[in-house]
Amino acid sequence: MDHLHAIILAGGAGTRLWPLSRRARPKQLLRLFGGKSLLQHARLRLDGVVPAANIWAVTSEDMAEQVREELPDLPPEQVIGEPAMRDTANAIGLAANLLHSRDPDAVMAILTADHLITPIDVFQQKFRIATKAAVDQPEALVTFAVKPTEAHCGYGYLRLGEPVADGVRTVDAFKEKPNKPTAETYLADGHHFWNSGMFVWKASAILSELNRQLPENADSLSSIATNWTTAGQHAEIAKQYAALKRTSIDFGVMEKAKHVLAVELDCDWIDVGSWESIASLTTPDEAANRTVGGNAVAFDAEGNLIVNEDDDHVVVAIGVNDLAIIRTPDATLVCNREHLNKLQAAVKDIHQRFGDRFQ
Amino acid sequence: MDHLHAIILAGGAGTRLWPLSRRARPKQLLRLFGGKSLLQHARLRLDGVVPAANIWAVTSEDMAEQVREELPDLPPEQVIGEPAMRDTANAIGLAANLLHSRDPDAVMAILTADHLITPIDVFQQKFRIATKAAVDQPEALVTFAVKPTEAHCGYGYLRLGEPVADGVRTVDAFKEKPNKPTAETYLADGHHFWNSGMFVWKASAILSELNRQLPENADSLSSIATNWTTAGQHAEIAKQYAALKRTSIDFGVMEKAKHVLAVELDCDWIDVGSWESIASLTTPDEAANRTVGGNAVAFDAEGNLIVNEDDDHVVVAIGVNDLAIIRTPDATLVCNREHLNKLQAAVKDIHQRFGDRFQ
Repeated sequence: MDHLHAIILAGGAGTRLWPLSRRARPKQLLRLFGGKSLLQHARLRLDGVVPAANIWAVTSEDMAEQVREELPDLPPEQVIGEPAMRDTANAIGLAANLLHSRDPDAVMAILTADHLITPIDVFQQKFRIATKAAVDQPEALVTFAVKPTEAHCGYGYLRLGEPVADGVRTVDAFKEKPNKPTAETYLADGHHFWNSGMFVWKASAILSELNRQLPENADSLSSIATNWTTAGQHAEIAKQYAALKRTSIDFGVMEKAKHVLAVELDCDWIDVGSWESIASLTTPDEAANRTVGGNAVAFDAEGNLIVNEDDDHVVVAIGVNDLAIIRTPDATLVCNREHLNKLQAAVKDIHQRFGDRFQ
Repeated sequence: MDHLHAIILAGGAGTRLWPLSRRARPKQLLRLFGGKSLLQHARLRLDGVVPAANIWAVTSEDMAEQVREELPDLPPEQVIGEPAMRDTANAIGLAANLLHSRDPDAVMAILTADHLITPIDVFQQKFRIATKAAVDQPEALVTFAVKPTEAHCGYGYLRLGEPVADGVRTVDAFKEKPNKPTAETYLADGHHFWNSGMFVWKASAILSELNRQLPENADSLSSIATNWTTAGQHAEIAKQYAALKRTSIDFGVMEKAKHVLAVELDCDWIDVGSWESIASLTTPDEAANRTVGGNAVAFDAEGNLIVNEDDDHVVVAIGVNDLAIIRTPDATLVCNREHLNKLQAAVKDIHQRFGDRFQ
């Protein structure tokens, strides 16, 4: 299917994984799992469903070269570096314009690199179903709706409606992150699914909704895309891009879109956005210590998470409990696991004191 | 005074300062204080009292080159590398033989590099008194007796007797490390002093006592010293040295020596042999956190000791109390300060698991 393209969203900072993640080394580039980065996992999930020649990535201008190195089989010009970060509606809008000008019949899948998704064959099966739905109903915006496994308060939800095709349902409503009792009713009723932030649609369909709902952004993005590859336009493009109204694809487009469908994604869909979520992916030893990466050893110590990417370095914990010990070559974090919510504030302070590279 | 020489004892391993100290990087080489190592501080204390041409150091063969680099103004051949570590009686005996064969009238001061001693001018004044006593009473073994400031159970003690010259007293008895009640009576009675492990004597005087008390060691050491600079003898010397009976200068010689005097050393004499002793040398911040070296920052954290030698690395503690966090380029220790006594056992395990460089 030559018209099918995939766009991997590879922006985002992720200070909740500091000091491993930084502005200049966001979590998508961390090689925490099987020696591969989340970005590489996102690309590998497309093996056999989208050819490399049709895969794109959108990231910040600063990160573009790193992303190209991370995904060397993508055409380099298909790694789009945004001159400023203006949230997902604009990132997707830029990609849609660039793609549509190349192929007015393009179908585009929007994929995130924030999660581990297994098994891959289930994901690919659902991906094909979603793609077929987007082709069969060329005005539809098709989202992936993840079957919830717990009453999670950190995700937005979709309330699904009637089946319209095999594995495809209507979307009745978008729901903001719920409180715990609400999340529990969502989990119990069987109609609410996690909003994955992943979509498939025709480029023309999303451009049409952008024009309808965010006409100023749509106009600017169209102009930016027209000049994108024109030499000498960079300063003007950067200025226009920075002036875009910042909004997310969910809030800015999906919630009021005319024709939204969903494909149920019955996969393990694991957020790797915090040290606690990383911890939950590891197997604890008999003292409930968990380790990621290189050498670590604990004596009279329980419930610690030790992350040490470097095989040449050893981390030793003695007589300490329930700590997150995260070591990198230029920064070491020792944090009570119950205080990890203070990390983002601490990082602001650290970067002011010790310099931008710690941001 | 051309006959006066100083011998700095620079052996010793110091796993209690792991991971900063290692077998290959003993604590004497750590630059913890004012950018200078303890060894350099020991050498600087001699400035103006012993010329560099008359300063020697005794260390292990493996460490000799590092010690030479650390003390570049010493004649290289005066950094003596022992082929095996056989405790202080043999280290001193070897130096005494080498020195005596060069100058039968040599007076030798034995100095350690394990302590910070301040103020230097008081030390040097006492050093001159001790030297004079050793010259005036050429059979005497003169020790430095440190005026105790607390009922310390980790040191040996000297019970001092009558004054024999200005600032010089007889030594009535050597006392092993006492228990707490005994240490308290020592502190109260005013006659007990800490055994500093530093001495001044004529080379002939210590050789005479070695001959009397440790005749086998004395014979071997004499033979080893005779062949010390002879090319081709290394294997034989190493074999003889390894066969020496291991004993300390205190236990092997001083406790039963015929003629022992002491000079009272009324100085700050600070052991830097453990992380707790290092901590006691620092000034705590308002949250009782103490730092040594490079960048460290604590949030909602109290009573931590953070050691980070590297200005390019930042250590961040959040929500943790009473930890020792010691970072080096290849090893990081996170230890409850009350569990630091487990460190030596842990290091054995670590070195077996991860290799000799961690020893």
